[in-house]
Amino acid sequence: MSTTYRVTGMTCGGCARSVEAAIKAEAPAASVSIDLGTATITVDGADEAQVKKAVDGAGFDFQGAA
Amino acid sequence: MSTTYRVTGMTCGGCARSVEAAIKAEAPAASVSIDLGTATITVDGADEAQVKKAVDGAGFDFQGAA
Repeated sequence: MSTTYRVTGMTCGGCARSVEAAIKAEAPAASVSIDLGTATITVDGADEAQVKKAVDGAGFDFQGAA
Repeated sequence: MSTTYRVTGMTCGGCARSVEAAIKAEAPAASVSIDLGTATITVDGADEAQVKKAVDGAGFDFQGAA
């Protein structure tokens, strides 16, 4: 089951790649899709606590479920 | 003592912030300065292995000492 979260502070493809890498470091099997235009990420295979830890640790702003 | 490393893949301030956050997660007392124009980062208070782990883990490309 995938969940979509709002994440602010991502402004380019490098940011998106960084968020994806951080989530996969927490949950290696996770699937991550990032939409910079809507500032949302959709994640399958990681729980909210893992996603929040990864996003915050990567220097972006986790805003909870979108 | 600070050391300067080449890191590629950073394209905006969000990327720079992400690299800095990742290094500080490895070495909380580290001081980090990032120059996007020259693709270099200057780090004090973390060793090269910590910097490499942080940069690679954040989805950017650690290229060694500049």
